[in-house]
Amino acid sequence: MSTTQHSIVIVGFGGMGSYHGQLINENSRLKVAGTYDLLEERRSASAEAGYKAYSSLEEVLTDSEVEAILIATPNDVHKEIAIQALRAGKHVICEKPVALSKEEFEDMLAAADEAGRVLMVNQNRRWDEDFLIIREMYNKETIGTLFQLESRVHGANGIPGDWRHLQAQGGGMLLDWGVHLLDQLLFLIDSKVTSVSASLSFILGNEVDDGFEAVLQFENGVKAVVEVGTTNFITLPRWYVKGIEGTAIIEDWSMTGRMVTRNQESEKIEPKPIRAGVGLTKTMAPPSEGATITEALPAPSQLPSGFYDNFAAVIEGTAEPIVKNSEVLRVLNLIEAIFASAGTNQVIKDFDIYAK
Amino acid sequence: MSTTQHSIVIVGFGGMGSYHGQLINENSRLKVAGTYDLLEERRSASAEAGYKAYSSLEEVLTDSEVEAILIATPNDVHKEIAIQALRAGKHVICEKPVALSKEEFEDMLAAADEAGRVLMVNQNRRWDEDFLIIREMYNKETIGTLFQLESRVHGANGIPGDWRHLQAQGGGMLLDWGVHLLDQLLFLIDSKVTSVSASLSFILGNEVDDGFEAVLQFENGVKAVVEVGTTNFITLPRWYVKGIEGTAIIEDWSMTGRMVTRNQESEKIEPKPIRAGVGLTKTMAPPSEGATITEALPAPSQLPSGFYDNFAAVIEGTAEPIVKNSEVLRVLNLIEAIFASAGTNQVIKDFDIYAK
Repeated sequence: MSTTQHSIVIVGFGGMGSYHGQLINENSRLKVAGTYDLLEERRSASAEAGYKAYSSLEEVLTDSEVEAILIATPNDVHKEIAIQALRAGKHVICEKPVALSKEEFEDMLAAADEAGRVLMVNQNRRWDEDFLIIREMYNKETIGTLFQLESRVHGANGIPGDWRHLQAQGGGMLLDWGVHLLDQLLFLIDSKVTSVSASLSFILGNEVDDGFEAVLQFENGVKAVVEVGTTNFITLPRWYVKGIEGTAIIEDWSMTGRMVTRNQESEKIEPKPIRAGVGLTKTMAPPSEGATITEALPAPSQLPSGFYDNFAAVIEGTAEPIVKNSEVLRVLNLIEAIFASAGTNQVIKDFDIYAK
Repeated sequence: MSTTQHSIVIVGFGGMGSYHGQLINENSRLKVAGTYDLLEERRSASAEAGYKAYSSLEEVLTDSEVEAILIATPNDVHKEIAIQALRAGKHVICEKPVALSKEEFEDMLAAADEAGRVLMVNQNRRWDEDFLIIREMYNKETIGTLFQLESRVHGANGIPGDWRHLQAQGGGMLLDWGVHLLDQLLFLIDSKVTSVSASLSFILGNEVDDGFEAVLQFENGVKAVVEVGTTNFITLPRWYVKGIEGTAIIEDWSMTGRMVTRNQESEKIEPKPIRAGVGLTKTMAPPSEGATITEALPAPSQLPSGFYDNFAAVIEGTAEPIVKNSEVLRVLNLIEAIFASAGTNQVIKDFDIYAK
């Protein structure tokens, strides 16, 4: 097992950049060699955090001690910085969304290929516990085959007050949170997306979307609902999933949740009609006593390693990337289909670049 | 004020028929003159309940004491019975869905017109307390202009075990519960539906849908999500609505719910990023302390009178129907658009027969 620590420079030392700094400090395979940011105040912050503050990107890229850079800048400059770095022989970790379009990312991939260097996108929410619990349920069919997955992230703070408001810098919620939720679903569901229907929300009056809803239909019969909102003062559950034998819910990041399944032991007893509003309903009456079982959610499934460890192994040539660039490209392509669906108010079909 | 009690015969004495019997007994303007059902056991049930059991529809329609009939049969025979009754000079209350298609209902309307008799459809869920609370919030802008309404009814009992399984008899959840939820929304939102996108669910393997989801876009900017499910072992809230100033929720028919609004008094303080899963988020952090206010839901809005009282007043010529046939026709037309959208997996536009 290699004990080399790979030196990495964080380019863009804002919220995410400094968060990466903390996480990399806890990691044994990577070492923060410094940071680079355009802003003077962030250079000071970097020095205070104990990281060398490079004075230019050029200085980073010509430093032969630096093996890799991590790009945590606004989205519109990912491509330019990544390509420069790859051409200078550096490996690259790039924040999500890796690019503003599929085409931009293809240029980045070509540069990585040509340079023979690793480019990996930080789709870190593949490691989220909530997602990995759903992944466990999907793979193990804990509540029977899952046929509907609803993945929602709701906030009430609007769009954060920075470049995320601007279209030119790749702002908006579809590119910010959407790219995570869509990446999780395509990583999970090994099937072609046959159609997508979506709408964007512009409640806050920004030029970029403050939320969106998309319905994805997969060839294997699974339907997924993906929703991001920033004007939701009450939140709907983070995950709501339906299987043939039951339903599961994860309320929020505290992992509060449960699964309720049909009780196979109990004889099927017709429920009694209940009064609901001014009417009667048997259909919507609660299942009869003993007809269902409520249980705790299963333990999350495990990925082979963490993101940074995987990156280190990939540049050492000892592992395949967990976040594959073909998958990232597929998600960008799906995002373009979602923009197209919302823009034309049509169902978009035959777009997915799923290959299997 | 009239003190005449109008005599009415209930045709179809199953679950809904006998429920109507109970409700009409509590009403001062209508009087159950008897029932008619094809099944012997239901005739006995009628006699036990103290209602004369007519031996044929003919016997009902030739009884000059009978002013009106209430049709609570399976959906496929509504049209035939209604037209016979109207031609025999009877007024008609018909259960929902009034017909299996817009065309069928148009035939019924023509018969009512020709006979100069009243035909009213029992869209009774316009009187549901949960709906009337949402109506109050919509009309009074309690949490600001409502721009998104999500109306869900979730059960786990499958489709009830009778004719509701059969397409020929007008089974399936879109025609059963869908007609209520759609009627509520079109009654509430005085604007044209510009598009609908929908999917039906066939999880239980029936020839009719065991649930559906539809997204309606209205010309006035309101978006509505309507969902019915019969395989939901955990329920999502009955209502989830978003306004410019806040969000409201009604969990279920017990009226458990709340509304959460922006606190105008409190200065806007940027929320602190939270750790969520393996990442950080400022966008999805809970609003900062004091930034929101949680309150009880408002009292329900009131309709001018109850359904049976309104029916009595309409046949007396002293009131307009609260459930207008033009509205019922519009809902049937919307249901046809939903079937078309689901069948072709396309967004359907330019179909609504809204007139204003």
